[in-house]
Amino acid sequence: MDPAYITPFVSSISNVFETMLQLPVSVGTPGIKNSATPTYDVSGIIGMTGDVEGTVVLSFPTATAERAVTLFTGMELPSGHEDFADAIGELVNMVSGGAKAQFHGKQVGISTPTVVVGSGHNVYGRKSMTTIEIPCTCDIGEFNVEVSLLLPAAAPTAD
Amino acid sequence: MDPAYITPFVSSISNVFETMLQLPVSVGTPGIKNSATPTYDVSGIIGMTGDVEGTVVLSFPTATAERAVTLFTGMELPSGHEDFADAIGELVNMVSGGAKAQFHGKQVGISTPTVVVGSGHNVYGRKSMTTIEIPCTCDIGEFNVEVSLLLPAAAPTAD
Repeated sequence: MDPAYITPFVSSISNVFETMLQLPVSVGTPGIKNSATPTYDVSGIIGMTGDVEGTVVLSFPTATAERAVTLFTGMELPSGHEDFADAIGELVNMVSGGAKAQFHGKQVGISTPTVVVGSGHNVYGRKSMTTIEIPCTCDIGEFNVEVSLLLPAAAPTAD
Repeated sequence: MDPAYITPFVSSISNVFETMLQLPVSVGTPGIKNSATPTYDVSGIIGMTGDVEGTVVLSFPTATAERAVTLFTGMELPSGHEDFADAIGELVNMVSGGAKAQFHGKQVGISTPTVVVGSGHNVYGRKSMTTIEIPCTCDIGEFNVEVSLLLPAAAPTAD
């Protein structure tokens, strides 16, 4: 996948976590995801359509997700609380929206988020599409951002 | 939610399962989903953007999903197989695409699917949006379609 479409996610992750959670994130090297690994407990999922079509998934272990939600909302919310799911959905919305804003010259729509809470689930993108996994580390633990996109022929234009 | 946006899903579910799986489906009365129930094992998730923005989730117990995939692909695929996830993704894609085709006069984009496999997971839409649950029964078991949409002021036009 053209790195011009992954770099916006890397900067958006750092920006969202730093500004909304006051949490610096160390973003590792993006790589191709092997289909069924790893497993997660909490996943926020959003769809992209238009010139850039695909999905963005933000996945956490439960403890990390709970700490992230507390930093984001100022409340201690267990993973079974509907406001917890809403907060995770808003995080993936902000990360996707921040990346989309950097797809200059592209018409892109993003859907509303869906959040899955369930211990040890696997997340699959479409088999014919490459999923790029962006590993992230921060003081509250590790999490992953997975980006699976059908791309237009031309890369986004520079600012 | 305006029933004019739910009826297309009801007819699309019946149409997809009847034509692709040769499986008649009894579609129950759509109702408002209460946040955290029920739990599922396999969920295909797709995003909608444009004049109709939201998400569509097709959720199954494992045994029903496995039987549906066998009818759809002609192969016995366990739920851990990546072709299994791909088939579930294609089903939610067809159901969403069939509904979208009935949103006459509306510009709507649908994302690529994401599939979650994990015993007993919960699926949450955005808290501020109503999620409509469409209960379905067929010879291979029960499954659910959940539709969560932000709607335009005007209903889709008739044919």
